[in-house]
Amino acid sequence: MSSIKRATPAYPIHDLISQRWSPYAFSARAVSKADLCSLFEAVRWAPSSYNEQPWAYILATRDEPAEFERVLSCLVESNQDWAKAAPVLAIGCVSLNFQRNGKPNPAAIHDLGLAAGNLCVEATARGLCVHQMIGILPDKVRELFSVPASVQPLTALAIGYVAEPDDLPENLKQRDLAPRLRKPLTEFIFSGRWDSPSRSVSDGD
Amino acid sequence: MSSIKRATPAYPIHDLISQRWSPYAFSARAVSKADLCSLFEAVRWAPSSYNEQPWAYILATRDEPAEFERVLSCLVESNQDWAKAAPVLAIGCVSLNFQRNGKPNPAAIHDLGLAAGNLCVEATARGLCVHQMIGILPDKVRELFSVPASVQPLTALAIGYVAEPDDLPENLKQRDLAPRLRKPLTEFIFSGRWDSPSRSVSDGD
Repeated sequence: MSSIKRATPAYPIHDLISQRWSPYAFSARAVSKADLCSLFEAVRWAPSSYNEQPWAYILATRDEPAEFERVLSCLVESNQDWAKAAPVLAIGCVSLNFQRNGKPNPAAIHDLGLAAGNLCVEATARGLCVHQMIGILPDKVRELFSVPASVQPLTALAIGYVAEPDDLPENLKQRDLAPRLRKPLTEFIFSGRWDSPSRSVSDGD
Repeated sequence: MSSIKRATPAYPIHDLISQRWSPYAFSARAVSKADLCSLFEAVRWAPSSYNEQPWAYILATRDEPAEFERVLSCLVESNQDWAKAAPVLAIGCVSLNFQRNGKPNPAAIHDLGLAAGNLCVEATARGLCVHQMIGILPDKVRELFSVPASVQPLTALAIGYVAEPDDLPENLKQRDLAPRLRKPLTEFIFSGRWDSPSRSVSDGD
């Protein structure tokens, strides 16, 4: 069994966060229907502005090869190269206007991200990995799946079990093997003014 | 101790998802520095497009009343009414352009949502609640905190321990007591074409 490249946190965080990782290498092993239901049930309970739940997903599994190919064809080529190996693909879409009054929802895209966060947590809890992509062909999604004008196809998600990166092209293999890096908290948690590190999350004090 | 209004999932989901809830009523109990560090450490390990980590937060706790008031003043009045009781406030900001080349980052706002999702999970794991708001005064944030033009202040987060809603205005009290509702999966998980419920997450089949 291949292993997750865990985070290396500076402060304690829950295992479901440190074990989440976006690999390029996916195993052919299928994802059960029960797992898929729970992944999207987790999406369902994400918070959203005015409880609008502006997210929607176009889902395809390898069990339906023609549908899978249609969704795969909506990714940019460099993403197709590795995402084709995942057993499940989804396109993340977002309704840009409120359903009740048609006005723009300024939180819509943010809330699609919140929903995806929930999906990743549930996936991690079930031993699954998710690799999200922004590199999709939104116009092709619109055309192939008759997506309404007020809805923006924004992301794609490859979902499945991690694999050893041996079969990946060399550049992607290197990405799966590279250390995971993040900015320190002092670079993005400010107090008082922009760029002034917050003492509430620093080691001093 | 006041209790969380849990989700009522139709399919099994992890406790950290079903226990997450956005109350209006917060206790005065302070959040420890250790907890705050872990909350933002969880943010730090969120995924983001090209690992850009486009998020930043302006943070204030009640321990510094003047700073707390400044952040509070950046919320719309209807949010100030209840958020003033929380021990911690943060403004969620997002860099709209990539740091390495200045080009627009189409995933930036989505990825701020992903980061907030991680923060909510870590908060839930620590018995804390988070209530996010889109109702802020972005221009006031820019002015008070010297936020650069390429950065968008988008959200606010109230963080703390849940309280009984007795001290809330009646309309907010009712919201804290109301049942939690969500659309069924069949309304937002599609396969083949828009609005066609996916059989991969339905009870039939």
